[in-house]
Amino acid sequence: MTGPHTELLAHDPVAAIRWKDDGLELLDQRVLPARESWLRLESATDTAAAIRDMVVRGAPAIGVTAAYGAVLAVREAVKNDPVGWREVLGPLLQVLRVARPTAINLGWSLDRMERRLQTVEHEPVAAALAEAIEIHEQDKFRNRRIGLNGAPVIEHGSTIVTHCNTGSLATGGFGTAMSVIRAAWEDGRVASIYVDETRPWLQGSRLTAWELSRCNVPARLIVDGAAASVMREARRGWAIVGADRIAANGDVANKIGTYALAVQARFHGFGFMVAAPTSTVDLGTAQGSAIPIEQRDGAELTAGQAWQLPPGIGTHNPVFDVTPAQLIDCIVTEQGVHRPPFAVSLAEACESAAASAE
Amino acid sequence: MTGPHTELLAHDPVAAIRWKDDGLELLDQRVLPARESWLRLESATDTAAAIRDMVVRGAPAIGVTAAYGAVLAVREAVKNDPVGWREVLGPLLQVLRVARPTAINLGWSLDRMERRLQTVEHEPVAAALAEAIEIHEQDKFRNRRIGLNGAPVIEHGSTIVTHCNTGSLATGGFGTAMSVIRAAWEDGRVASIYVDETRPWLQGSRLTAWELSRCNVPARLIVDGAAASVMREARRGWAIVGADRIAANGDVANKIGTYALAVQARFHGFGFMVAAPTSTVDLGTAQGSAIPIEQRDGAELTAGQAWQLPPGIGTHNPVFDVTPAQLIDCIVTEQGVHRPPFAVSLAEACESAAASAE
Repeated sequence: MTGPHTELLAHDPVAAIRWKDDGLELLDQRVLPARESWLRLESATDTAAAIRDMVVRGAPAIGVTAAYGAVLAVREAVKNDPVGWREVLGPLLQVLRVARPTAINLGWSLDRMERRLQTVEHEPVAAALAEAIEIHEQDKFRNRRIGLNGAPVIEHGSTIVTHCNTGSLATGGFGTAMSVIRAAWEDGRVASIYVDETRPWLQGSRLTAWELSRCNVPARLIVDGAAASVMREARRGWAIVGADRIAANGDVANKIGTYALAVQARFHGFGFMVAAPTSTVDLGTAQGSAIPIEQRDGAELTAGQAWQLPPGIGTHNPVFDVTPAQLIDCIVTEQGVHRPPFAVSLAEACESAAASAE
Repeated sequence: MTGPHTELLAHDPVAAIRWKDDGLELLDQRVLPARESWLRLESATDTAAAIRDMVVRGAPAIGVTAAYGAVLAVREAVKNDPVGWREVLGPLLQVLRVARPTAINLGWSLDRMERRLQTVEHEPVAAALAEAIEIHEQDKFRNRRIGLNGAPVIEHGSTIVTHCNTGSLATGGFGTAMSVIRAAWEDGRVASIYVDETRPWLQGSRLTAWELSRCNVPARLIVDGAAASVMREARRGWAIVGADRIAANGDVANKIGTYALAVQARFHGFGFMVAAPTSTVDLGTAQGSAIPIEQRDGAELTAGQAWQLPPGIGTHNPVFDVTPAQLIDCIVTEQGVHRPPFAVSLAEACESAAASAE
């Protein structure tokens, strides 16, 4: 990478996924920021459970974790059957594949691991580990590119509103929307940053606030319902979010509340930017209505409280929503800044990404 | 009251304010629904503290509480100086008046108590108590009227989204928006009800869910960020909210997130209804920008969590916002259903209310 922005995003002070002493270690995001606790995983099944239980979350981070989980699966399979390990491997990868439904990066990453393993002759564990490390490193590289691509779009003096956590915790490193926000901040373009607390899991107040603080980027935490008022007062700026899956037409599945933010942005004349690597684009899904939206346990809405919901009161706890392409001003990937019509620009971006990977 | 709807809202199973054994008792809303704990208040200063600390909240309930607080103030003043009690009373009422800034009902109620006390000759405590009881009873009567007025506006098969708590806990009885929702539900007009959890204080999940359950009205709890998705799927319905203060032009100050809900409603073709007694209308305030918006301690955003905000991360915790009149389809008071232009209809409603009180 060259150009005027190479000094931006020089350093990444946060990491959440590491391969250490022949095992996968994850920073437990369920207890951050109260405790920085690393969990060690020795099997694919444990890795799938960690993804399902949200020890790790964020689409690109789930992808990187699944890749390392596949390494553990290969090791397990080879140990059980040094010759017929491929037979044993299939079901183990399937356990990883169904850990969570919405993020496409999970399947993308496992597909790539499977392609690599199809051709391997000797030392499949070493080959798998090399591939997982490459997926991890490429994710960092792409995310840094996302930041450098997206930052120049942000006009000087912009107010930024962001939702959920899209930083190094949510990715292999640097983050997606967070990468854009950091680069724009370091480039002096940002007047102020507001972070939605992001109910029910509080990714904003627990994780994004912690990461921004680590990066020395000041910000203010708001309840999700305050974003509209913030935009009304600020008058100009950008809502910047990540993505769990982007359909071929540009519809974006992301954390519940993202769609609400997109409507608010359009109403207030704010730009609405989605930042994601091309691995989040699912050209096989024509539009957002076909993306599976995970419903999680309604107990997430009362977690940590000394009371329960009374009789007759249910919950509706979809943890993602779909933002239609019409509400999105630009999608920023490592390939560049894509404007509507996204059906064309996203297909080209994915083609370029595939070509540069060859 | 007569008419086809008199069977609706026949019973109010919840009460939060009572005058008992010569003292004021409040159901402590900070610990609901985990505990039903009544707090006994013997002085105006204690009552002001209870309002400030949100033992009681909701604009009409604050008004009723302040009226009883004024009774305690009169008792205290008469005890200190049986002749010159009016001199002592002023500062005590002032303590009540500044307990919270946004709800107009607080000042409205104290103004009315002061007017009554100006003319009293004998037994000022008894006179004050009679006036407070009348304020309380009138609030219940008006709120029931609000429900009967508002329900017919709701088309059959509507999906309802509501925000904060606007029920008997928030008023002298029956509630405002809750009164409309209950009456519309009992009248068979409602397909489903979604309750915003309402961060940061969780009035929706703690209080509204509890009240609806008591009233045998089924509902589903959602995070505030999910309301937009719910509207998008439901296609038709109403967002129904209360108000802390309504300016002369129809701009409405209410719980933070109300404005966001109004934008979502307009975008999705949902109706947006504000339900409030005329005591919430402040004809002396021309428009919403002149309404003081309370900022509360940012610690409310991390309350109950085992962690604190990291260095460099601030909070922005306005607990109300202003919804411009242009986003409001109707304001329902005890006087009827008011449509734009509100400047005319609200002034008429207040005039009618004043005339009927004479």
